[in-house]
Amino acid sequence: MAKDKKLVEQITSMEEDFAQWYTDVVKKAELVDYSSVRGCMVYRPYGYAIWENIQRELDRRFKETGVENVYMPMFIPEGLLQKEKDHVEGFAPEVAWVTQGGFEPLQERLCVRPTSETLFCDLYSKIVQSHRDLPKLYNQWCSVVRWEKTTRPFLRSMEFLWQEGHTAHATAAEAQERTIQMLNIYADFCEKYLAIPMIKGKKTDKEKFAGAEETYTIEALMHDGKALQSGTSHNFGDGFAKAFDIKYTDKDNTLQYVHQTSWGMSTRIIGAIIMVHGDNSGLVLPPKVAPTQAMVIPIAQHKEGVLEKAEELRAALAAAGIRVKTDASDKGPGFKFAEQEMRGIPVRVEIGPKDLENGTCTIVRRDTREKYEVTFDKVSEKALEILDKMQHAMLEKARAHRDSHIFDAHDYDELKDIAENRPGFIRAMWCGSLECEMKIKDDLAVSSRCMPFEQESISDVCVCCGKPAKKLVYWGKAY
Amino acid sequence: MAKDKKLVEQITSMEEDFAQWYTDVVKKAELVDYSSVRGCMVYRPYGYAIWENIQRELDRRFKETGVENVYMPMFIPEGLLQKEKDHVEGFAPEVAWVTQGGFEPLQERLCVRPTSETLFCDLYSKIVQSHRDLPKLYNQWCSVVRWEKTTRPFLRSMEFLWQEGHTAHATAAEAQERTIQMLNIYADFCEKYLAIPMIKGKKTDKEKFAGAEETYTIEALMHDGKALQSGTSHNFGDGFAKAFDIKYTDKDNTLQYVHQTSWGMSTRIIGAIIMVHGDNSGLVLPPKVAPTQAMVIPIAQHKEGVLEKAEELRAALAAAGIRVKTDASDKGPGFKFAEQEMRGIPVRVEIGPKDLENGTCTIVRRDTREKYEVTFDKVSEKALEILDKMQHAMLEKARAHRDSHIFDAHDYDELKDIAENRPGFIRAMWCGSLECEMKIKDDLAVSSRCMPFEQESISDVCVCCGKPAKKLVYWGKAY
Repeated sequence: MAKDKKLVEQITSMEEDFAQWYTDVVKKAELVDYSSVRGCMVYRPYGYAIWENIQRELDRRFKETGVENVYMPMFIPEGLLQKEKDHVEGFAPEVAWVTQGGFEPLQERLCVRPTSETLFCDLYSKIVQSHRDLPKLYNQWCSVVRWEKTTRPFLRSMEFLWQEGHTAHATAAEAQERTIQMLNIYADFCEKYLAIPMIKGKKTDKEKFAGAEETYTIEALMHDGKALQSGTSHNFGDGFAKAFDIKYTDKDNTLQYVHQTSWGMSTRIIGAIIMVHGDNSGLVLPPKVAPTQAMVIPIAQHKEGVLEKAEELRAALAAAGIRVKTDASDKGPGFKFAEQEMRGIPVRVEIGPKDLENGTCTIVRRDTREKYEVTFDKVSEKALEILDKMQHAMLEKARAHRDSHIFDAHDYDELKDIAENRPGFIRAMWCGSLECEMKIKDDLAVSSRCMPFEQESISDVCVCCGKPAKKLVYWGKAY
Repeated sequence: MAKDKKLVEQITSMEEDFAQWYTDVVKKAELVDYSSVRGCMVYRPYGYAIWENIQRELDRRFKETGVENVYMPMFIPEGLLQKEKDHVEGFAPEVAWVTQGGFEPLQERLCVRPTSETLFCDLYSKIVQSHRDLPKLYNQWCSVVRWEKTTRPFLRSMEFLWQEGHTAHATAAEAQERTIQMLNIYADFCEKYLAIPMIKGKKTDKEKFAGAEETYTIEALMHDGKALQSGTSHNFGDGFAKAFDIKYTDKDNTLQYVHQTSWGMSTRIIGAIIMVHGDNSGLVLPPKVAPTQAMVIPIAQHKEGVLEKAEELRAALAAAGIRVKTDASDKGPGFKFAEQEMRGIPVRVEIGPKDLENGTCTIVRRDTREKYEVTFDKVSEKALEILDKMQHAMLEKARAHRDSHIFDAHDYDELKDIAENRPGFIRAMWCGSLECEMKIKDDLAVSSRCMPFEQESISDVCVCCGKPAKKLVYWGKAY
């Protein structure tokens, strides 16, 4: 078995080089591959299956709130992109331009969508006339392109997959309610499904989405103490409505501008799953999102009855609703174990000749490596119980890790010390000025992550300038 | 009610102008809208929901045969596109080129994928080494771009949604088997799910996919007698493998080229659903693919108990697994009926004050307009029965229409007469020469649709040149 284990290429340890560990894992778990297009990646079957599970669950949650899916063109004419001033300023530096179709140069350049606010606004301006047409609760699943200089799988790539919801409402209050509703759906999904606890809050003006009145965010803490913005929800007020002339007649027959929101979650969240839960043997996937939840691994499979029993166990697990496979390849068991661990498959079920004699098999849990000897008739029941426990334990472990990496800074020296020496979130009071926010970012390389919904006062004064404090802010180094 | 009906804008009748009827239906059933991008369309919720149902069912069928989903970049570097000579010649005239990223011109142009053979080949050349790595059975759901001059919703647009499967196999026989397997899946899906009968066959060399050894197709007949190519499956042999150097070591440790296939079905098929089943009241959707299968329409809904009973009926239908909605808007019943008909919702359930007294409601079937008076306790049972009957009847009606529009031509005069006067498929024998194929196309404006799997001899000689015939060919005007 020791010899077998070497067959699985070693990954760099997290403690040695977290960035290299990450790259090794995404590559060796076969989540993605690099492509011949700079900055674009190939989502391989295992990586894409994780995304399909995320899609299915999020889509279900969206639809429960009345959201409908649509699909908009991938191109945006330059003139359309320019209609909302802040928006074009924010995105123009990072879009790809189509300038030629077939053998003909285009009269107007088309950008490949970096996000689709402008297209949705264009549509809404045509199809919204009356209060009866509201609300519009549209979403699309698609890919978007942002011309990034440096890229990393899932975290930052030229093209990525996401969903973007775009809604139009009769009133400001309704738009605000929808903005928060979708943020809550994201946070709840991440906790319950991905076992990642989130801090919910509002972005500072500096960190807002280009064109938004308010941007709300969920922020997660990775294993290395860096933050990852995991989903955002924007309230546009009537800014886009004015730029795109989206009006409706209300019940009193008066023309009104609509109020809009948008909200998105992307394949970036797969990066969070990896960096929150992974360990030095590879991925650890929360059972709910794992494409394969159990791998049955026969040992000495040439011996009589082993493969037959493995198939029986697989069938029993499948019948219980568990996503299960059998690894009956001609690799050695040690190699198979290492592969199952690298891929973060939540449990493996070992079955060999001795087990046949005993009438038992062994279930091994991926996150804790606990072993359970189980009689054949109890395998499904026990596996379901372990998967359920594991899902909860992973959330609690991630929460404990995060909570032990939140540090309060009461003055600038303390802030500096934490920023330089203690990876994690920093909580500190802020006066609300852009100047202080910039100084902290430039001096200490930590940015404001959010003003959390759960505000408290840990000091009366701004951690930077000493003037009266307005808000508690989470700061951190971020991906 | 007569007054109400006028509220629904009339659509052009099919007999008067089929093309305008089609455009009216896609627009007024709110399947799509035109966008500000020339030749690109917006898939509105109702149109996209049809596509989601198609995706779900096809995806399930693919996965049952071992296919895995992936996602490849949307850009192809020019150099990569040029690796297979026939392929680039076929596609270069109709691709969109990205020449600038952010503010920088690109060193190498990127085309927006018109199809992704080159990217899959590039990937396979990296990840296929041994016979153990085969077969690779990958598929992706994505959008592709083809720079078309004239566009029509669903049938031909600059950007469209599709799936493209790309497989690599150890042997030529396996690749051929997969090519036919996928064609059969398409045909079976169209018959069983979309109620559209297909003619399966092989394309002539002239009509083959750029780079393929053989292209297989399923061809449907629209209501106006024109053909629609509805799905294709290509056997590439080892042509792409040689161009991209995709080799594996076989069991005897010898290097071999892989054999490849690709196969695709697109949103075009929605055009087929419309043009095969629609009528002068709008869409008629086969129950299996209909986003909403039943619409409960309360009549005189202000009267006591009507809305409550409508909700009871809706809940009963939903509990039986029927996709059902209630139209409780403040429009009149006639308007609601016309809307439900326009959208092709398979059945409506009418419930008014009189029905309350009688303890019955009326189910109206969309395709035949038959009415069924049903007691409340039988509504689900009866609705399920009607939906099932309707699904089958629609297929039989489409088959009868098609079969009555297939005409045999034994000589050129007969061919000419049919091509000019009788819309439909024409069966005629062919010598196999490009010359005859081109002459028929140029003279008579009918193209070869396929050489059907079910070959027979209706004459010994070619319909065009009189030389010995080799193949029976279906000819037709095509979308």
